[in-house]
Amino acid sequence: MKAAIFRQGDLVVDTLPDPVPGQGQVLVKSLACGICGSDLHVFKHAHSFTETMRRANAPEVMDLARDVVFGHEFCAEVLDYGPGTERRLKPGTRVTCMPLTVSADGVRTLGYSNALPGGFAQKMLLDEALLLEVPNGLPSEHAALVEPMAVGVHAVEKAALKGGEVPLVIGCGPVGLAVIAALKLKGVHPIVAADYSRTRRALAEKMGADVVVDPSERSPYKTWTEHAAVKPAVFFECVGVPGLLQQLIEGAPAQARIVVVGVCMQSDRIEPFLAIYKELQLQFALAYTPEEFARTLRHVAEGELDVASLITGRVGLEGVKEAFTELGNPERHAKILVEPWR
Amino acid sequence: MKAAIFRQGDLVVDTLPDPVPGQGQVLVKSLACGICGSDLHVFKHAHSFTETMRRANAPEVMDLARDVVFGHEFCAEVLDYGPGTERRLKPGTRVTCMPLTVSADGVRTLGYSNALPGGFAQKMLLDEALLLEVPNGLPSEHAALVEPMAVGVHAVEKAALKGGEVPLVIGCGPVGLAVIAALKLKGVHPIVAADYSRTRRALAEKMGADVVVDPSERSPYKTWTEHAAVKPAVFFECVGVPGLLQQLIEGAPAQARIVVVGVCMQSDRIEPFLAIYKELQLQFALAYTPEEFARTLRHVAEGELDVASLITGRVGLEGVKEAFTELGNPERHAKILVEPWR
Repeated sequence: MKAAIFRQGDLVVDTLPDPVPGQGQVLVKSLACGICGSDLHVFKHAHSFTETMRRANAPEVMDLARDVVFGHEFCAEVLDYGPGTERRLKPGTRVTCMPLTVSADGVRTLGYSNALPGGFAQKMLLDEALLLEVPNGLPSEHAALVEPMAVGVHAVEKAALKGGEVPLVIGCGPVGLAVIAALKLKGVHPIVAADYSRTRRALAEKMGADVVVDPSERSPYKTWTEHAAVKPAVFFECVGVPGLLQQLIEGAPAQARIVVVGVCMQSDRIEPFLAIYKELQLQFALAYTPEEFARTLRHVAEGELDVASLITGRVGLEGVKEAFTELGNPERHAKILVEPWR
Repeated sequence: MKAAIFRQGDLVVDTLPDPVPGQGQVLVKSLACGICGSDLHVFKHAHSFTETMRRANAPEVMDLARDVVFGHEFCAEVLDYGPGTERRLKPGTRVTCMPLTVSADGVRTLGYSNALPGGFAQKMLLDEALLLEVPNGLPSEHAALVEPMAVGVHAVEKAALKGGEVPLVIGCGPVGLAVIAALKLKGVHPIVAADYSRTRRALAEKMGADVVVDPSERSPYKTWTEHAAVKPAVFFECVGVPGLLQQLIEGAPAQARIVVVGVCMQSDRIEPFLAIYKELQLQFALAYTPEEFARTLRHVAEGELDVASLITGRVGLEGVKEAFTELGNPERHAKILVEPWR
């Protein structure tokens, strides 16, 4: 099969042996797979990523001397089953699921594994137990975006809203947009969102932001205060670069809750005293629960979460490397989908 | 009146004019006043403290060119009332209260104010509205320690215990000891606590710690795991120096809540990715609510919070400067009380 492979620090298209489904596994055809900001980060900073994963005692840490196929936001089609499966869904059925497998070898993260290819290959292995059927009528490219949308749904759950809070979303890349969509789904208003990019601010409005602000023109925190007055603050950090956390700590009012969704992989500097003085809460959030993932699929299928607006590009395997560069331009892109059979 | 004065970076004993009670204020005699770790920090790092307070938009920031009298953990005796007071408590009544005043001039923090002396002076001004009567039979030196104990009570409230958590207290100075006492009061067991000082570990056991550990011999985090197994983690950071937060982030299991009570006044470095990977929550905690302060006084009066063990020294105003040095030795001291009339 063909795949876009992360090999020796580069992205190359090459053929790989077709994967063979093991116990409880399903062989699927990757129909569409989103490029995630984490993929871009790992492409650029692979060694620091694996080093951090090792220190976090991650169950599997990629060996960068060996091939890795990225891609963990996918819609796929059932081809064949391995041993010990119930063959619950017919071949040809479209599916999506959380990007992980659990076997006797341990837990693996699809898209960041030497053993299992991610969705930027033509074929993948998934766990039958995790498969979710994609409803008829839901385009595969929309089903592929259930994963990033579930990140937003989870972040909003982690915010443990009690009612009456006014949210501020810092950063309107795919993560921030997913958070905005999940907040809208909860009926939270007004939603204040900030991004330097005009395109992303427009997308934020489309996803449900009531107020958007360009930080180069106005302070997002001042704008938030104007709209929230004395209501409780829930800020979402959706950028994930050093310095942002401290910026939110400085901008937050007393008793604010800050949900950290942007994945900052570098070391960062904060002033604990400011956070203490304001009695802030930092809730770090990762991924989603199985229930949240399944719920997000239902919301996407029912059109309650608008994923169509996020898609700004589609490429075949040969276009993956260029797409990684293109995604650096927030005025042009939000989400680029890889279609390995294109 | 006599006072130990923070003047031009030094601590000197001098006379000051007696304070005159304004609208709603009470003139009191300071009977006993604890020396707090924050006092030691401000003595050493006054400029960075005021700079940070300015950046935190604190209502009053000390002018270091002018005199300041420290002391915010006090028991006092009513002497006289200012205008607009109800004269609710007779002169001679012993009182304690939260160390702040609210007037037309704004909110002032007793002990860190140019306008109002703290408890290391013979006389102080308090707000009548905040006064709490010290019950008969409760020694003044114990009443003075309601303030630091209330910090522990508040930190445990901020931990929002749901039941079943196993706490780990890092640092058994006065803050950590107050947290341990408040945990014991809640009936939480086992309480695991860590400190390099043997004296402080012994005090921790006296205050209610079930397991104490010397970090130079064993990892507190491994010890915690042995006692907690898979129970939820609530860690209390009670040291407040750079590096500790990252140490707790590294030592914490997934989904742990970390209550930050130690006041780190320097900039600090953390790795957000580790916190994200584990979905940690950092809850920064400061001071107490009026209800918690009053409740703490009742617990101290009823002997449910053991403050007697904390007191390791008593000095007059002339001994304050030396006591500040002495408190640097954790094998000798936990809490030194200043008795301005001694």
